[in-house]
Amino acid sequence: MIVEYISIGTEILLGNIINTNASFLAEQFAKLGLTAYYQTSVGDNKARINECLNIAAGRSDIVVLSGGMGPSSEDVTLESVSIFLGRNIVDGAIEGSTVIPNEFGNSSGEIITDNGHYYILLPGQFNELKPMFLKYAVPFLENVADSVIMTRTVKIAGINEDEVEDKIKELMLNHSNPSITIYPKSGEVHIHVTAKGFDENECERLNKPVIKELKTLIGEYIYTSEDEVSLEQSVVDLLKSNNLTISCAESCTGGMVASRLINVAGVSEVLNNCYITYSDRSKHKILGVKKSTLAKYTAVSEEVAEEMSQASALSNKADVFVSVTGVAGPDSPYEGKDVGLVYIGCNVKGNNKVKEFNFKGDRMKIRECATTAALDFTRVCILEYITKTQFDFNK
Amino acid sequence: MIVEYISIGTEILLGNIINTNASFLAEQFAKLGLTAYYQTSVGDNKARINECLNIAAGRSDIVVLSGGMGPSSEDVTLESVSIFLGRNIVDGAIEGSTVIPNEFGNSSGEIITDNGHYYILLPGQFNELKPMFLKYAVPFLENVADSVIMTRTVKIAGINEDEVEDKIKELMLNHSNPSITIYPKSGEVHIHVTAKGFDENECERLNKPVIKELKTLIGEYIYTSEDEVSLEQSVVDLLKSNNLTISCAESCTGGMVASRLINVAGVSEVLNNCYITYSDRSKHKILGVKKSTLAKYTAVSEEVAEEMSQASALSNKADVFVSVTGVAGPDSPYEGKDVGLVYIGCNVKGNNKVKEFNFKGDRMKIRECATTAALDFTRVCILEYITKTQFDFNK
Repeated sequence: MIVEYISIGTEILLGNIINTNASFLAEQFAKLGLTAYYQTSVGDNKARINECLNIAAGRSDIVVLSGGMGPSSEDVTLESVSIFLGRNIVDGAIEGSTVIPNEFGNSSGEIITDNGHYYILLPGQFNELKPMFLKYAVPFLENVADSVIMTRTVKIAGINEDEVEDKIKELMLNHSNPSITIYPKSGEVHIHVTAKGFDENECERLNKPVIKELKTLIGEYIYTSEDEVSLEQSVVDLLKSNNLTISCAESCTGGMVASRLINVAGVSEVLNNCYITYSDRSKHKILGVKKSTLAKYTAVSEEVAEEMSQASALSNKADVFVSVTGVAGPDSPYEGKDVGLVYIGCNVKGNNKVKEFNFKGDRMKIRECATTAALDFTRVCILEYITKTQFDFNK
Repeated sequence: MIVEYISIGTEILLGNIINTNASFLAEQFAKLGLTAYYQTSVGDNKARINECLNIAAGRSDIVVLSGGMGPSSEDVTLESVSIFLGRNIVDGAIEGSTVIPNEFGNSSGEIITDNGHYYILLPGQFNELKPMFLKYAVPFLENVADSVIMTRTVKIAGINEDEVEDKIKELMLNHSNPSITIYPKSGEVHIHVTAKGFDENECERLNKPVIKELKTLIGEYIYTSEDEVSLEQSVVDLLKSNNLTISCAESCTGGMVASRLINVAGVSEVLNNCYITYSDRSKHKILGVKKSTLAKYTAVSEEVAEEMSQASALSNKADVFVSVTGVAGPDSPYEGKDVGLVYIGCNVKGNNKVKEFNFKGDRMKIRECATTAALDFTRVCILEYITKTQFDFNK
């Protein structure tokens, strides 16, 4: 079935907001096995909304609209759809529609079946649209579709999109149900494994061996196969389940690693404090990096990353200590050290590792990539430590 | 003149990427005084791109397309436009087009004038599209337009969109040239003042008194009237020009304030280090917040924010010391202290101030709002200190 999304709101046409609804819904449509050929944005104007509805209904089976569902006179979506379908509005809803409740706002949504087409009307606010779509539209669309679609997401860090494709190319070619799709996601790679079947059990049965195969091929890079688990959540979970605490010292990322860890609710069980040591002086004073090391190798070096994660000047150090130092640009202060060169250190109970990275992009992009790399490197180092100590224990 | 934007790329329809091009171009169109009624996204498919071109050319004067301009066989934008216009492709460009060079990538762009319509073709990568649009498309569109358009952006923090509108409503109603538009921008508010005139001088002459009037009405909240200056840049500039250094201690924001400051290139002149003191223990140990204060008032209190920004345990303290402590959620650990309650402290050379904030939203949203508020509060406190010391000096 073909689905089309129309986002309504003059604020979109003025560039006031970034249309996050569009990418969320597009990904949902793909997960549901629906085909999308077009997306349209239009202002709060009845004639122009009508034109969009005409075009969309002519080429798609399902039309999802968002925005303009509020009570103000500028909100004309409901009226436009009612005119387009030739139905009245009774008690604030289009005749014959199913009203979708909004738990996070005042504008409810509607689902309408009309002449072999389905219209789903949603509010424009992403934090209202998302739960309403997941709770009400997804089951409706699963029901409308001739079969059940189930997607499992396998999340990967530490290698890029092309490397993932190289490693799983054959698997992708050999499978059409489930289909395997690769999505780059700001420094990570997500793989969607999507099965179509008579019921959920059949989908699960189809997905399972492919997930297993993925784990065989690229298991070391997979940090989760759960939809709702982020990289930072997986690190915090790993710390909690192994009774480990964490701290970090950041230079070029300047708080971004700590900030992502602290976005995990309940992180206080494993994190007390972190340090942003931006200058050479603070690397020496706060962490205990030797002046001679800084002088000999510069702040962006394997040696300094190592001493940063040893943090010899700190008493009561956390079990896991992560360090990041690099050249974020726009210029490099060190001869022979290019913009994008980053060293990440990780010390797990005295076991120290340092890895070199070379990122591309502007200052912000390099800092984002370094942050994701630091979280993933931490995950890998903790896992190595656990495996090692379990091995020692078994001896 | 009416402009329409078509973004081309199957990755958009799959939800792989968020369409940041769309909001950037929409804002640029508005600045140029162009009217936009529709935006469309379509996959890398010649028939469907042709359909979009047909629809767009029927209702708009200028069509801007992006994406699908690369050399791979999946990139069919150039071919689709050449078929639509009935022109050949010669040496990789459409006959009669003006080629726009791409300084940051391999795919160049093109500008084509055809039958009273203008077509602007750009690559899909935002970091390539943006400089090409600003350098080549903007002058072309200014020339095409019957008059010159000039926009000045006035950037505001510390009050919300509705409060800004309340304060400048009359000014907005009394002016149509320049027009005054309010844009909310993740915790900040931007005002566009857009004049239409015969030449730049006339536009400047029209804009000037309105900018002056805005400064009279809401000057205390304006942190810049320069397009390229961010809030963190304005704080760093203020520090540099007054020979002040900065440091911060963050709890709920956990590195986000430092991270934004450190995104300013050259921040090392004013910032050595920052602290993330997430636990009560680290607030006491690292900063010197009294155990009795933490016990009596809890970590989320005016008293603790004040002691955090005094940072009595630190030697060699920076001139400006900012502290953030709050309840980011999803639950509050303290009775009577709701999720979203945040205290921000700022100490400028011994002059200490604390302000209470109440933010709404999820954990991430609250942390983002607190970060912007902390940067703005810092700016205000530095300005107050400068004014005070200048006054003392003049006595």
